[in-house]
Amino acid sequence: MKIAIVLYEGFTALDAIGPYEVLRSVPGWEVEFVAQERGEVRTDSGVVGLTADRALAEVGEPEILLVPGGMGTRKKMEDEELLAELRRIDATTKWTTSVCTGSLLLAAAGLLEGKRATGHWAWLEPLRELGAEPVGGRYVEDGKTITAAGVSAGIDMALYLVGREAGPEVAQAIQLGIEYDPDPPFDAGSPEKAPAPIVELVSGISRAE
Amino acid sequence: MKIAIVLYEGFTALDAIGPYEVLRSVPGWEVEFVAQERGEVRTDSGVVGLTADRALAEVGEPEILLVPGGMGTRKKMEDEELLAELRRIDATTKWTTSVCTGSLLLAAAGLLEGKRATGHWAWLEPLRELGAEPVGGRYVEDGKTITAAGVSAGIDMALYLVGREAGPEVAQAIQLGIEYDPDPPFDAGSPEKAPAPIVELVSGISRAE
Repeated sequence: MKIAIVLYEGFTALDAIGPYEVLRSVPGWEVEFVAQERGEVRTDSGVVGLTADRALAEVGEPEILLVPGGMGTRKKMEDEELLAELRRIDATTKWTTSVCTGSLLLAAAGLLEGKRATGHWAWLEPLRELGAEPVGGRYVEDGKTITAAGVSAGIDMALYLVGREAGPEVAQAIQLGIEYDPDPPFDAGSPEKAPAPIVELVSGISRAE
Repeated sequence: MKIAIVLYEGFTALDAIGPYEVLRSVPGWEVEFVAQERGEVRTDSGVVGLTADRALAEVGEPEILLVPGGMGTRKKMEDEELLAELRRIDATTKWTTSVCTGSLLLAAAGLLEGKRATGHWAWLEPLRELGAEPVGGRYVEDGKTITAAGVSAGIDMALYLVGREAGPEVAQAIQLGIEYDPDPPFDAGSPEKAPAPIVELVSGISRAE
């Protein structure tokens, strides 16, 4: 199984690295980071530089395509060259996946037309304008498409995908290997659980960015 | 608040990127990736290259030091130059922290002498041989040292640290921002919860690596 994770200026590091750490641990699976041009790609914070080892145009027919989110999606949603590459690769994938606002890129490429999909909770409505049917959920499967909720949800989505493709034992072994037994000191990870003023604050920041 | 995250050949990407994504979101906090030499550092899988923007020798007095784990720790535990730099930086930190087997590097540097500490569940006993008192827990605080359990535990530890330093509202806002409302499809993230054969399998792989 070959997996291509697409990097672009302004992606969110954890969107890509969370699922990578799960998928790369399956025996025989090969993850590759790709971008429009080879070389270093900087994240939304500017602080992280990740190397793309292959140019998108050189990417063959990976079984899994994964598109992370990040503030860079705004600009990239209008990058026809990138969107065309996503469509080309999607044409032969077994699974096309996204994390967070990565679903906006898939939708802009026309790949979520009429499909149920999710993404970061503060960015669900724009999916509708792009022809998808936005729904809640940690990850949402519709046909060969799996879209995950915000940032950290990519880890859960990747474990689900490994369970589907390699079996629950492999997924459980990887979960144990990365000691993914989450126990955050607060319980504020969704707008339903976080205190209302916190939800308002974060919504405002998202709108302003 | 300045935070230095130490990279070295063979670190585990999620150990570093999980807490980074939390810490970098605090207004006014500055995260920097550092290594013995500036430039690209490859992870344990070889698939990820992350850029270190500063050489360790050029690192001043960050308030927070964070050391990720990974199979590369084996070799680095005997790298006296690296261990000396960790001791030098630790001398003026407010918090010295690690994720996963990063605690073995701190211990090898003599920084966990007599302290309660944790790390990846399969690598707790080696901590004792290095003078620490290994204990379980998602993250363990002893004085100014906070050590986190395996790989994904760095996210929980970072949220805790933000709660301590910037207040619970900021930590909750960040948790909501990264939608950290974990819901893995399996419940196998700790040796107490995973099926016994899975624990045996993963222990065997850890020992063999």
